[in-house]
Amino acid sequence: MIPPDHPRFRSLVTRELLAESAKKGIVSLEGLTAHGRGEAFDYFIGERTTASALKAERTAAALLLSARHPVISVNGNAAALAAREIAALQKASGALVEVNLFHHTEERVNLIEDLLMTAGADVFSGPAERLLPLSHDRAWCRREGIFSADVILVPLEDGDRCEALVGMGKSVIAVDLNPLSRTSRRATLTIVDELTRALPNIADSCRTLSSAERRELLETLDNNYLLSDAIREMTMRLAHALD
Amino acid sequence: MIPPDHPRFRSLVTRELLAESAKKGIVSLEGLTAHGRGEAFDYFIGERTTASALKAERTAAALLLSARHPVISVNGNAAALAAREIAALQKASGALVEVNLFHHTEERVNLIEDLLMTAGADVFSGPAERLLPLSHDRAWCRREGIFSADVILVPLEDGDRCEALVGMGKSVIAVDLNPLSRTSRRATLTIVDELTRALPNIADSCRTLSSAERRELLETLDNNYLLSDAIREMTMRLAHALD
Repeated sequence: MIPPDHPRFRSLVTRELLAESAKKGIVSLEGLTAHGRGEAFDYFIGERTTASALKAERTAAALLLSARHPVISVNGNAAALAAREIAALQKASGALVEVNLFHHTEERVNLIEDLLMTAGADVFSGPAERLLPLSHDRAWCRREGIFSADVILVPLEDGDRCEALVGMGKSVIAVDLNPLSRTSRRATLTIVDELTRALPNIADSCRTLSSAERRELLETLDNNYLLSDAIREMTMRLAHALD
Repeated sequence: MIPPDHPRFRSLVTRELLAESAKKGIVSLEGLTAHGRGEAFDYFIGERTTASALKAERTAAALLLSARHPVISVNGNAAALAAREIAALQKASGALVEVNLFHHTEERVNLIEDLLMTAGADVFSGPAERLLPLSHDRAWCRREGIFSADVILVPLEDGDRCEALVGMGKSVIAVDLNPLSRTSRRATLTIVDELTRALPNIADSCRTLSSAERRELLETLDNNYLLSDAIREMTMRLAHALD
């Protein structure tokens, strides 16, 4: 339907994929709007991985590899956009994969777990408990999963939950295209990049980082710098937009 | 469900309203994503009407009042967000209100027309013809409506359609939060503001502009200036975002 020479072809195809996923019940209707928000920010960083985002992705790999109990938390948008990339990152990093939803129903959890398993992920499932200090269904997680994790990768997260996880002493790696969001500011490490670009870069780094590089990345982690640089990139592009 | 003290309360309530409207069939799934895109840009202009946007809104009133045959073109998102504001602007400006959809079905047209009429709008309806030089269902409009209009207000429009209308010699007033979009650049006049803020400002101006003010606004219309100023506002906010 969408002509391949359309100036916004890739963005429109992704939008259609998400609309299809919403019809199947994988993505929530609110998730569609949240995706649109991300699209605008991606536009501002030029729909590419910036140098500082790549540094953040390498640092994410270092955090995951140094963790005692790393977990990748997956929601509907993340599964719809990047199930295969999540499975590949799991293989490269050894992290657990656990589904955790803002708009939670048993049916959606099952759909998303199926999608992830079909893509090759090994999903940590089973009965969840209200373990996080949050209202809403977001309090639910699994005792041996997110609750016990020391490092959590949370793609496309909400600010409250990110804050609660950090408050519990966990290192939180956020993937968020909005460098101004509460998630971005509260996370231990924020990757300002689009998910299907970010995850393969993290997986690559898991496979290639030397232990000296790992140590150096962790010692020099500076999330304020990463956010400032993302904002600088966006400001520059905007300022030259009408040239 | 959403606590009123949530920092993004208004945005989340609107998102929920749109999700509800999507369930009813008024808003398309793609419309939800498009709304999210707009949210990000609104965030960048500070979720308020800037001085240059207000100037654009006053100029829009001048264009509507000077028109021979003004039409307000309404899509699903516009109706879901601002049916009452559209009805009020119709009263103040004397414009026709006509429904025109990108994702067109007879059922959606009927739903949206009902919503507008319930909000007090007088909807110009009846059989449509393929009259615009466009592929897709967007070619459809009514001979005595949009096809004959000299001034058209198109909130939340797509770029192709905006271009086609301008190519037919019409003055197109766009309401678009993205100052870089094709719609924004091709329109005769672009209002970079959120719809429920923009429409009441246009209606107010319709009621209060003197004929000297009208003339002056039309003589000094400079869409490049309006777009540049919107971008300048966004750049400034971004640059100071981490202060």
